[in-house]
Amino acid sequence: MTDKKEISAGIIIIGNEILSGRTKDTNTSTLALWLNSIGVKVSEVRIIPDIENTIIETVNVLRKKHNYIFTSGGIGPTHDDITAESISKAFNRKYELHKEGYKILESYYKPGEFNEGRQKMIWMPQNAKLTLNPTSGAPGFSVENVYCLPGVPSILKSMIGGLKNEIVGGDPILSQTISLRTVESEIANSLTTIQNHNSDVEIGSYPFFQAGKLGVSIVIRSENKDKIESCANEIFNFVKEKNIEVINRD
Amino acid sequence: MTDKKEISAGIIIIGNEILSGRTKDTNTSTLALWLNSIGVKVSEVRIIPDIENTIIETVNVLRKKHNYIFTSGGIGPTHDDITAESISKAFNRKYELHKEGYKILESYYKPGEFNEGRQKMIWMPQNAKLTLNPTSGAPGFSVENVYCLPGVPSILKSMIGGLKNEIVGGDPILSQTISLRTVESEIANSLTTIQNHNSDVEIGSYPFFQAGKLGVSIVIRSENKDKIESCANEIFNFVKEKNIEVINRD
Repeated sequence: MTDKKEISAGIIIIGNEILSGRTKDTNTSTLALWLNSIGVKVSEVRIIPDIENTIIETVNVLRKKHNYIFTSGGIGPTHDDITAESISKAFNRKYELHKEGYKILESYYKPGEFNEGRQKMIWMPQNAKLTLNPTSGAPGFSVENVYCLPGVPSILKSMIGGLKNEIVGGDPILSQTISLRTVESEIANSLTTIQNHNSDVEIGSYPFFQAGKLGVSIVIRSENKDKIESCANEIFNFVKEKNIEVINRD
Repeated sequence: MTDKKEISAGIIIIGNEILSGRTKDTNTSTLALWLNSIGVKVSEVRIIPDIENTIIETVNVLRKKHNYIFTSGGIGPTHDDITAESISKAFNRKYELHKEGYKILESYYKPGEFNEGRQKMIWMPQNAKLTLNPTSGAPGFSVENVYCLPGVPSILKSMIGGLKNEIVGGDPILSQTISLRTVESEIANSLTTIQNHNSDVEIGSYPFFQAGKLGVSIVIRSENKDKIESCANEIFNFVKEKNIEVINRD
C-alpha cells in the first residue's frame, strides 16, 4: 500500500487510423511517461473510432473512474474531427466558438488565412479551458477533468508543458530496470518469491530478443526509492547465485 | 451500408509495461492490419493492467460485443503472467495443465529443461484450443471467440499464420491513401462534401510533418473497390481545381 491515495488517469485515443493499424499509437507512451514523472498512474487506455456516441459514452464512463482523462485526436478542422462536439454533448454543454481561442488563432494566422476550416478548431464546449499549442496555434481544451489534445504526436508532445500546472499528482512513480541474459522460466520462481513479500512494489518481467540473443528485463516500480533498492538487492542475490549475466541496470 | 454484416473484433492489450509508457504497443497495428486483410474490423482496443479482476471484466464485456477478441500479453512463465488463469475464471472453466500443450513443450525442450516455470505456460482454461507458436514453442490458446496471444511482438506476429483457418471475416477492407502537399483547413470543406454523399465509405484525414514539410494523408476505406475509386476521383477533382500537389497515391 502506498502512503497517499493513488492518482489515476485514463487515456482515450480517438481515431480510426489507429484502429485500422495504419498508424501506431505513440501518444499513450508520451503521456504515460510524463504522467508517471508527476506521480499519476495510467490505469487504462481505450482506443476508439471516430463515432460520436462511442466518444460520449467512453468519456462519461472513464471520467468518473479516474482523476484525469486525456483524449488524443479529432480536434482538427476536417469532417472526421468530432471530439470537441462529442465532449460538449458528454458534458451537456453548448458547442460554440471559444472567444479567447478565436483571438489566439486570429493573431496566429496571416490576414485572410483564418478561414472557416480553421475556425472550426476553436469551436468547443462552453467555458472550456484552453491548453496552449506552441507548435501549430490551434489550442487544445479541457472540461472539468477531461483534457483534449490533438493526435499528431509532435504537437501533443509540445502541449504537455502547458498542462504542468493543471495536473496534480502524487509522488513520482520511480522505476529501475535490470536486464539479464537469461530466459523467464529460469527466474520465474525466484521472482515470484520476491514479489510475494514485496506486495507494495510492482515487479514486471519482460522477455526480449536483441541482436539475436534472448534476455529478460525486470522492471521494479514504486513511489518509494528504498523499496525499489531493496527489491533490486534481492534480485541481485539470486542473479549471483544462478550465475546470470547482468546486461544492464538503469 | 455494407452488403454483409460487419465482422468486428476487439483487442485487449494486457500489460503494465504498456501503461507505464516504457514499451510502445505495436501488437494492435500488427493484428489490425492482418484482420483488415481478412475482412474483420477492429472496433475497439483496451490496454489494461495485470490485474485479475480487470482482465476478467474486460474480457467478459468485450466478448459479447464483438465477433472476435484477441488478447496480447501475460501468458509467459512469471508471476505477472496471469492471463490464462484470468480467462479460465472469465469462462468459469477449470484452470489446468493442457495435455496436448504439455506434449508439445515436452518435445520442444531438451530433457531436464522442461522445468516448473515452463510448465506454467501450458496451464490453461479446460478444453482450450491451442494456437501453435512456431517461434518459441509455448502455444497460445483460445476459448470460444477469445484468442490469447503473447505480448512479445515477433512471437505474436509468427502465430498469426496459425489462426488463418479459425477467423472467418467478411470482404477484405480495402483502402487507398492520397497524400497531398496542403494543410487540412484548405481541404476540409471539400472533404466534408465528398464524405456527405459517400456515407458508406470511411474518409479519414491525417496531417503529417515529413522532412520539415506539412502534408495531409487522406485515407479512403471500404469493402468496395469501385466506391473507393469514385471517391478518389472526386478528391482528385478538387485537388486539380485548387492546384494542390499530389505527393503520393497508394
